[in-house]
Amino acid sequence: MTIQSIDVNVCSPGRNFVTLKIVTSDGVVGWGDATLNGRELSVAAYLSEHLASTLIGRDEDRIEDTWQYLYRGAYWRRGPVTMAAIAAVDMALWDIKAKKAGMPLYQLLGGASRDRIRVYCHASGGDYPALKDAISGYLDAGYTAVRVQTGVPGLGQIYGVSTTKAGGRYDYEPAHRAADGSAATAPIEEVWDTRAYLSHMPSVFSRIREDFGTGVRILHDGHHRMTPIEAARFAKDVEPYDLFWLEDCTPGEDQAALRLVRQHSTTPLAIGEVFNSVYDYQTLITERLIDYVRSAVTHTGGITAMKKLLDFAGIYGIKSGMHGPTDVSPVGMAAALHLDMAIHNFGIQEYMPHSDVTLGVFRTSYTFDRGFLHPGDAPGLGVELDEEAASAFEYTAAYLPVNRLQDGTVHDW
Amino acid sequence: MTIQSIDVNVCSPGRNFVTLKIVTSDGVVGWGDATLNGRELSVAAYLSEHLASTLIGRDEDRIEDTWQYLYRGAYWRRGPVTMAAIAAVDMALWDIKAKKAGMPLYQLLGGASRDRIRVYCHASGGDYPALKDAISGYLDAGYTAVRVQTGVPGLGQIYGVSTTKAGGRYDYEPAHRAADGSAATAPIEEVWDTRAYLSHMPSVFSRIREDFGTGVRILHDGHHRMTPIEAARFAKDVEPYDLFWLEDCTPGEDQAALRLVRQHSTTPLAIGEVFNSVYDYQTLITERLIDYVRSAVTHTGGITAMKKLLDFAGIYGIKSGMHGPTDVSPVGMAAALHLDMAIHNFGIQEYMPHSDVTLGVFRTSYTFDRGFLHPGDAPGLGVELDEEAASAFEYTAAYLPVNRLQDGTVHDW
Amino acid sequence: MTIQSIDVNVCSPGRNFVTLKIVTSDGVVGWGDATLNGRELSVAAYLSEHLASTLIGRDEDRIEDTWQYLYRGAYWRRGPVTMAAIAAVDMALWDIKAKKAGMPLYQLLGGASRDRIRVYCHASGGDYPALKDAISGYLDAGYTAVRVQTGVPGLGQIYGVSTTKAGGRYDYEPAHRAADGSAATAPIEEVWDTRAYLSHMPSVFSRIREDFGTGVRILHDGHHRMTPIEAARFAKDVEPYDLFWLEDCTPGEDQAALRLVRQHSTTPLAIGEVFNSVYDYQTLITERLIDYVRSAVTHTGGITAMKKLLDFAGIYGIKSGMHGPTDVSPVGMAAALHLDMAIHNFGIQEYMPHSDVTLGVFRTSYTFDRGFLHPGDAPGLGVELDEEAASAFEYTAAYLPVNRLQDGTVHDW
Amino acid sequence: MTIQSIDVNVCSPGRNFVTLKIVTSDGVVGWGDATLNGRELSVAAYLSEHLASTLIGRDEDRIEDTWQYLYRGAYWRRGPVTMAAIAAVDMALWDIKAKKAGMPLYQLLGGASRDRIRVYCHASGGDYPALKDAISGYLDAGYTAVRVQTGVPGLGQIYGVSTTKAGGRYDYEPAHRAADGSAATAPIEEVWDTRAYLSHMPSVFSRIREDFGTGVRILHDGHHRMTPIEAARFAKDVEPYDLFWLEDCTPGEDQAALRLVRQHSTTPLAIGEVFNSVYDYQTLITERLIDYVRSAVTHTGGITAMKKLLDFAGIYGIKSGMHGPTDVSPVGMAAALHLDMAIHNFGIQEYMPHSDVTLGVFRTSYTFDRGFLHPGDAPGLGVELDEEAASAFEYTAAYLPVNRLQDGTVHDW
Repeated sequence: MTIQSIDVNVCSPGRNFVTLKIVTSDGVVGWGDATLNGRELSVAAYLSEHLASTLIGRDEDRIEDTWQYLYRGAYWRRGPVTMAAIAAVDMALWDIKAKKAGMPLYQLLGGASRDRIRVYCHASGGDYPALKDAISGYLDAGYTAVRVQTGVPGLGQIYGVSTTKAGGRYDYEPAHRAADGSAATAPIEEVWDTRAYLSHMPSVFSRIREDFGTGVRILHDGHHRMTPIEAARFAKDVEPYDLFWLEDCTPGEDQAALRLVRQHSTTPLAIGEVFNSVYDYQTLITERLIDYVRSAVTHTGGITAMKKLLDFAGIYGIKSGMHGPTDVSPVGMAAALHLDMAIHNFGIQEYMPHSDVTLGVFRTSYTFDRGFLHPGDAPGLGVELDEEAASAFEYTAAYLPVNRLQDGTVHDW
Repeated sequence: MTIQSIDVNVCSPGRNFVTLKIVTSDGVVGWGDATLNGRELSVAAYLSEHLASTLIGRDEDRIEDTWQYLYRGAYWRRGPVTMAAIAAVDMALWDIKAKKAGMPLYQLLGGASRDRIRVYCHASGGDYPALKDAISGYLDAGYTAVRVQTGVPGLGQIYGVSTTKAGGRYDYEPAHRAADGSAATAPIEEVWDTRAYLSHMPSVFSRIREDFGTGVRILHDGHHRMTPIEAARFAKDVEPYDLFWLEDCTPGEDQAALRLVRQHSTTPLAIGEVFNSVYDYQTLITERLIDYVRSAVTHTGGITAMKKLLDFAGIYGIKSGMHGPTDVSPVGMAAALHLDMAIHNFGIQEYMPHSDVTLGVFRTSYTFDRGFLHPGDAPGLGVELDEEAASAFEYTAAYLPVNRLQDGTVHDW
Repeated sequence: MTIQSIDVNVCSPGRNFVTLKIVTSDGVVGWGDATLNGRELSVAAYLSEHLASTLIGRDEDRIEDTWQYLYRGAYWRRGPVTMAAIAAVDMALWDIKAKKAGMPLYQLLGGASRDRIRVYCHASGGDYPALKDAISGYLDAGYTAVRVQTGVPGLGQIYGVSTTKAGGRYDYEPAHRAADGSAATAPIEEVWDTRAYLSHMPSVFSRIREDFGTGVRILHDGHHRMTPIEAARFAKDVEPYDLFWLEDCTPGEDQAALRLVRQHSTTPLAIGEVFNSVYDYQTLITERLIDYVRSAVTHTGGITAMKKLLDFAGIYGIKSGMHGPTDVSPVGMAAALHLDMAIHNFGIQEYMPHSDVTLGVFRTSYTFDRGFLHPGDAPGLGVELDEEAASAFEYTAAYLPVNRLQDGTVHDW
Repeated sequence: MTIQSIDVNVCSPGRNFVTLKIVTSDGVVGWGDATLNGRELSVAAYLSEHLASTLIGRDEDRIEDTWQYLYRGAYWRRGPVTMAAIAAVDMALWDIKAKKAGMPLYQLLGGASRDRIRVYCHASGGDYPALKDAISGYLDAGYTAVRVQTGVPGLGQIYGVSTTKAGGRYDYEPAHRAADGSAATAPIEEVWDTRAYLSHMPSVFSRIREDFGTGVRILHDGHHRMTPIEAARFAKDVEPYDLFWLEDCTPGEDQAALRLVRQHSTTPLAIGEVFNSVYDYQTLITERLIDYVRSAVTHTGGITAMKKLLDFAGIYGIKSGMHGPTDVSPVGMAAALHLDMAIHNFGIQEYMPHSDVTLGVFRTSYTFDRGFLHPGDAPGLGVELDEEAASAFEYTAAYLPVNRLQDGTVHDW
């Protein structure tokens, strides 16, 4: 059998998603996620204008070959747009293969290595009392791992801090539409001060440990904003609070920068949500500069590439901690969950539930139960897009914020 | 003054080009090249759908700030699509600034460090006699440096070998349309055999040195097709023929692979036409594994980024050898030439003249004289797109070939 | 479904084989190869006395989990006996899973990355004329790659040299029974002289290139007998003869020894037929000291472990060259072939056809055609053991030779 | 004289042991230990089916030659099964040689370098009070070094924690038979939580130092369960409590993982009870990543191999700390004690007395006195197996536990 049709669906049920649909000549349907937050239409064009016609008539069974065909055949390799497009094709082909085998995808990846998938949630608060309420709510709901982000005195809105009231879904969506819900024409701009952050955060962790004890796994995201020496100092300063991980402490393009952080601290380090290739990790893994691989399946070339990357990490005692906020669609989330089930070196899975609007459009087989997910046992990935329902939600441009220091310098957001 | 309008022009005068036009509120026009061979519409969408509206109203003078805004503000950094889009904006802003200063751009980059720019041309032939004719023709035309590519016995069409008769323009265009000139639906596939290549090529260089002596600079492009040990052997084998450089001997994602090549040979190495970030070079430069930086301004984030990259290389005694075939537009070529004039560590410039059809649409101020180019002294980049002329040439999909080994394995093209 | 029965079959149809049979509660049968030449009964005991009872009732779908259970659960990890036992279980479970999916195994591993699998054969001769005849015979039969081993003047019988007449099957079996075909009580002892070998071999390669030209791929096996500096000298001496690879130049336990060889030569290096773990390769791969991974699926923990190892190698541009003489059974050979089809970084496959006696007992779906193999498209591995036919061939002890220098010192065989 | 007979004895006086008996043609008897906990019959088969016949008639004096014959002649080297088999032969031959010399073995190894051998014992307790009682009992008995293991709140049975009442012999035997004492069919499975362990243990050491002062040597075994960063943190956290050593902090296959631990802490590190070759230590020793070599003579190729390994370690200032729980037989224990007496770089010896049942079957000359052992001065190893007594205790399968995390993932036990 061969690939008969390729469709690229761009819809916005609550937020924008790019979804690839591949149908084989005998009618098997595979779905892939190509969502790249704030750059959706570039990936959609990559798929519909440049990849679609080249895939028609190809053998849908040759997944590795197709991956290499798209990766090496592109000539211009890597990068978020390219690798998100390849990822979508790869996911869809694995979805098809598993459906043809009549198995949930994790079975083809080696079968279940665990019973359920520990996730971490996102707790945030403009100030500590709000954060504390949010953490309490999550612990009550059974979560065992919580990423905490909080406002910094003297700064306004910053990354990771939702304004949702405690008890509601954390619906922090950093990609902004215009105020009236129409298409954004430009990113909002936030203001940042690393000194204020470095002064403030350790006390937050201290209060969390006082209030919640040592049991709960506390994660934190530095969001690329520290210099190497700032990150080294911060990672060392927070050692007493036993973070499960410190994420993205420095901008990740410069892998060797983590050497400085590593030299000074035993705080576990996670990085990679903006990475798209195993070569973004080669120094980090072989020099053991990180402890968790944070890539999204959607942004790192799909299941074929992620399996190799995670296995490589496992040789070095490094675990998975895959990206999983709502900027990957339920299709991309399912891809992560099947890998989470199958690999041995699973660490934790990020989980930020999609909104009801999103879940009205994507039908999912994965389930959540008190801090743990399971991909379900439907053949394939277990997620289907309801194209008719999706057609009611038109793409609406939305952008991630841009960050500036107080003197106006562009800073990493 | 501020940016008033942004237009993305996709045209195909002989081949496809993506050209960005920025007009300021006082009517100054800047041009940028965003051509990414075979992936043009993804870059065009990146620009028109995601960057254009965010730039309107911004101060056109803040080039560094805008670069950081687009690079860091994208969140998903690097990659050929992203960096080609940023490059186009950056070139257009430098074009505007130089026009406002009333100076050719190289003046703003520090002024001329040399009188003229040594280029290398592309000589090819299906067999040695044809190659010899081609080389002779170029030497007669005054060229002092020639990249040589030739057919390999037992293989069919391979990269870099034009079928043009000697004396004509080398119009090798690897990106193929359909046979009837209409849009391609898929890449052609070529067949490759590294063993045949490795057996054949040294004898070609030997004959060139016999026929043309030691004076002429001979360059060669391995086009990513060797494994590290094959490249090491090849680089060692060709030492007697004194190559000016061996280019892209291995796939470049794995920077550390060059260590093996370097350890065994003093053949100068050039790499980078598929790179898009200084981080693609960090190991290569600090470990001094290469001798020439091959990036295109168009694919590596523009003039702002290339200036820094080339300055960094210079600290390590590494020189420029910028990409310059027809897959960058005359706008991108001009950007390279202004950098070539200004930087101290200039090495050589690739030059493959655009066709008359292309040059009927892009008006250029740069000039060629017996093996050397000069950017000209028109204010700015010195290239203008004739939008009306361009409108006659509609974008027509064309793709770079995909390469397979004789057993069917996808290989690096 | 669960694992219902485990049988360990030890038979000797021409040579000894250890074959594992797993049957699931719904009757699906999986086969695995656990043959360890000369140590068969230790592996058989490991399986039947220590693993069998622990597997009954387990979920046959959980392959990765079972691999980790056997590897980490053994406490005493690695080593040829342990890893051959684990390999057999792993192969049998993948055989079962692919049969349940109704697909040849390579489909579950990502699908075909090539049309056919290039193999190399074994040519040998007591002297050069005999070797030349053998090579000619193989080239006539369509082989494109030949491992050559030959007698060394002044030495008697040495490894790799068959006494078969040219044209017959190369039935070199280094593991010896007693002279009358009954069980061996001890290894034969051969005599070795590295100086004689180092003096002689380059001239053999020289004559081969004179007689057969540069087209044929010539491989050679040093069989662990050189010191690092001898290997460095040899690898450098034979550079003009363009070996496809030099195998096992030094004893492999000391990975770092290859640094010395690598430093002096671009002769491609292959190693690993006596390895059993990815950790035997960690330095070799990350420092790029080898070019081909020579492990047998049967001795390196099965398909699960080999896929990870080969993918790891691929990140570094290192290819496969899996072990495949008759000391792996047709089951183990099929496992290699399915991996060969699926992985991208395939290099070459060793192939020494099993005897008719062996093939009368193992029914195989793989096919040979003029220098290439294909695993066939039967579901699973495509090999079945005819237990009744096998019962006619009782295990008969046979041992690999022991090697001594001329002064009586034990040397690596 | 030559080797006349080889017997492999598998018995279970309290626990399973594999004992090799070599008798020379003039009637000298040598004993060797080949016990590999939970994999006994694979080693027994290796010895009886594959080595025994090859040794008959060989010169028993050629110990080094026999070691090389078995190691290099096996072709498939290393691994716990192979090296335990070789170790048993090696021990038996040294036992014979020393008996022929009429000397205790340590005399042939260079004579006594000390008067007595400091040992460490195993104290454990389900909670701190129980652990404290156990430590007190040992200190009262004269021990100067105590390995402490304790229950972790929230976890059930874990490694190293005996349920014996204080004052009794620590008879923790992790290898389990079935509940009724008959043969086990599968390992028990324990549940593990590294976080709980890391939170709890430092406080245990703190209380020990408060209660027992700084005089007593405190050892602790991490039992391969930490990731590199967890081990680094733990080793750093426990620095104030001055551990004599932290053992097996990470899985040992990945020697380079210890770099991370070493970088962050001065807590002395011991590793190697699951190792079987000097090559398992090559990085650890030359990079000085450990302080104590933990191998068992029984599992690392015997006295010949251990003497070289310990001498190598001594060159780097690294000391011995040989494995010595009841999973090596009294024969293996005696082998360790003779090495302990003779080498210069002795550190400490693990000592867990065998049960009375075991000691009713093995007659030993070594003696214990208030925290110190001495091998005794009987010729040879000083241990004899009473084969008749042993015959009453049939081998009964018993397995070390398998470990799982709380989500079901197989973890290192």
